[in-house]
Amino acid sequence: MLDAPGAAGPGGNAGYCRPPTPGRAPWEKISRMRIVALAGGIGGARFLQGVRATGAEVTAIVNVGDDVTLHGLRICPDLDSVMYTLGGGADAERGWGRAGESWAVKEELAAYGAEPTWFGLGDKDVATHLVRTRMLDAGYPLSAVTEALCARWQPGVRMLPATDDRLETHVVVADPDPATGAEESGHDGDPEAGGGSRAIHFQEWWIRYRAALPAQRFVFVGADVAKPAPGVLDALAAADVVLVAPSNPVVSIAPILAVAGLRDALVAGTAPVIGFSPIIGGSPVRGMADKCLAAVNVPVTAAGVGGLYGARSTGGILDGWLVDASDADTAVDGVTVRSCPLWMTDERATQTMVEQGLALAEEVR
Amino acid sequence: MLDAPGAAGPGGNAGYCRPPTPGRAPWEKISRMRIVALAGGIGGARFLQGVRATGAEVTAIVNVGDDVTLHGLRICPDLDSVMYTLGGGADAERGWGRAGESWAVKEELAAYGAEPTWFGLGDKDVATHLVRTRMLDAGYPLSAVTEALCARWQPGVRMLPATDDRLETHVVVADPDPATGAEESGHDGDPEAGGGSRAIHFQEWWIRYRAALPAQRFVFVGADVAKPAPGVLDALAAADVVLVAPSNPVVSIAPILAVAGLRDALVAGTAPVIGFSPIIGGSPVRGMADKCLAAVNVPVTAAGVGGLYGARSTGGILDGWLVDASDADTAVDGVTVRSCPLWMTDERATQTMVEQGLALAEEVR
Repeated sequence: MLDAPGAAGPGGNAGYCRPPTPGRAPWEKISRMRIVALAGGIGGARFLQGVRATGAEVTAIVNVGDDVTLHGLRICPDLDSVMYTLGGGADAERGWGRAGESWAVKEELAAYGAEPTWFGLGDKDVATHLVRTRMLDAGYPLSAVTEALCARWQPGVRMLPATDDRLETHVVVADPDPATGAEESGHDGDPEAGGGSRAIHFQEWWIRYRAALPAQRFVFVGADVAKPAPGVLDALAAADVVLVAPSNPVVSIAPILAVAGLRDALVAGTAPVIGFSPIIGGSPVRGMADKCLAAVNVPVTAAGVGGLYGARSTGGILDGWLVDASDADTAVDGVTVRSCPLWMTDERATQTMVEQGLALAEEVR
Repeated sequence: MLDAPGAAGPGGNAGYCRPPTPGRAPWEKISRMRIVALAGGIGGARFLQGVRATGAEVTAIVNVGDDVTLHGLRICPDLDSVMYTLGGGADAERGWGRAGESWAVKEELAAYGAEPTWFGLGDKDVATHLVRTRMLDAGYPLSAVTEALCARWQPGVRMLPATDDRLETHVVVADPDPATGAEESGHDGDPEAGGGSRAIHFQEWWIRYRAALPAQRFVFVGADVAKPAPGVLDALAAADVVLVAPSNPVVSIAPILAVAGLRDALVAGTAPVIGFSPIIGGSPVRGMADKCLAAVNVPVTAAGVGGLYGARSTGGILDGWLVDASDADTAVDGVTVRSCPLWMTDERATQTMVEQGLALAEEVR
């Protein structure tokens, strides 16, 4: 299953992951492992394809900070990206949403002048949101709704939202009209966002403004009282290894870790925590992580993100940090750094990358 | 504007409507008339096209008994049929829903196993329901929502729901499983429907069972406390004439009249009330009115329906009753009956028919 790289790693602080030790055969037991992965949407979904391919028992804890209610529909972009991708229904070319999607509902909503018009609401996607919204309105928690939706998609991993509680990522941006800003910041529950700033929902910043408005900071509204979704703490307690997907650290992984009980359980757990860098050679693998990192004054490098997560031994979350071969000189205080190709070009390559992460977990265990 | 029929009507109780009296020129003032029409869905919409064509100021009071919440969407089939038809967006061939409709949402809902699957929920239609549901959830009454939707469609008549309150037509049918029936009848608010009967929503009876389950009776749930929607009483008070469209008398017109305050205002008003028979030659013009009439033991004839409505002078609602030329021998106690062609083959023919009704109004005034 593994394309084992040569034993001789490159110089610097990070070397190639250790190849399987002859006679120890760690790979044979992967299928008996319990892996928990923290993941965002599209990149997280691709990562999870590789994790699933190992044959292990996989629990994905998925970001819900991007979730938004539009046109009365509860939309969970990251959960849906993971579900559609692992369930074989995603549009691989566009990168988000459903394959063979149509847009009649969106066009009609625009004809009614129903705002917002900037969100890509596909017809097939609408059905998912209708089922979800109806179940939520009936009182089912998001975790139960997700399980019900997955009964159709059979993603092959257990999908859990980070929390069933409201947790929304808002972005504080400069407001050209302070009066408006003061009013809007009152709406979104961020009392600190006055004085020439305003907080907008992550989706508005990300999609409507394409992350072009400089972000001053990110606020995870509701995180202070959000509890981990049912199953999350049990999965972390039973995990043999925890993987942090190469998702956006600021707006995909951070909102998951903002659930205090979840982060505490991860840090206190016995499973090694291995992160995968979303930055290769100073650029995001995909998406706009660079703009998010700039907002929190973190260098757009594998070392920068590794430092943002930090070593578990010093209050962070990481035991090991896997970076791309091109970033082999990366060092993160207190964290074992190894390198291997991190481009998730296909499922096979992603599986190999994941197995390198599992090898690193064995190394740091 | 009028294709005036010959002055010599056929024999029997009903004659051709009076032609315009020379020198009086009543047709010239139609455009200054205020007409109120009670209407159901598809037939009502076609009728209203003819009313609108007269150039009069038209208020349509539309049945809401068919309204239903499916998949979390509030659906108002009659209001939408009228709105789409008068707004030029209806599928004339299919008879309901939007022209150029697609069905991705419906297919996806079925793929999730989301019930019910028997309702024809088109993608374009879904957008209407999303806008409506969102506005209702935000606290707007149905009358305000309808006005907002009509801002796009410009139907050319003022559209008012009969009531903003909950008023749902349920159908009591024999229950093959009395135990289930007792349980379900408790749900739908009809305590009399036990003992081997059960009440189902009109849409389920109409569409799922295609009215093939013999109906024992119809219950207008909520009608006892429903109030006329804002504008309804004012429109009736200001009306020069009230027209009852040739819609289904049992499940389209009766639920409108079940709003006690509305019926009282209509009966107490000064405007003549003219009904148009939905039965021609012993058969419904369209739809399944025969099955509905059988349930209330009313003959499927123009006379039967006229008698069901009854004369205003004896506790009913009608002053005049317009029947098809083929039903010219129709008599209804206390009601002036006239005949003319009632087939709404096109807008011009429908307009002529409406103008015959207006002439009858002049006659009985």
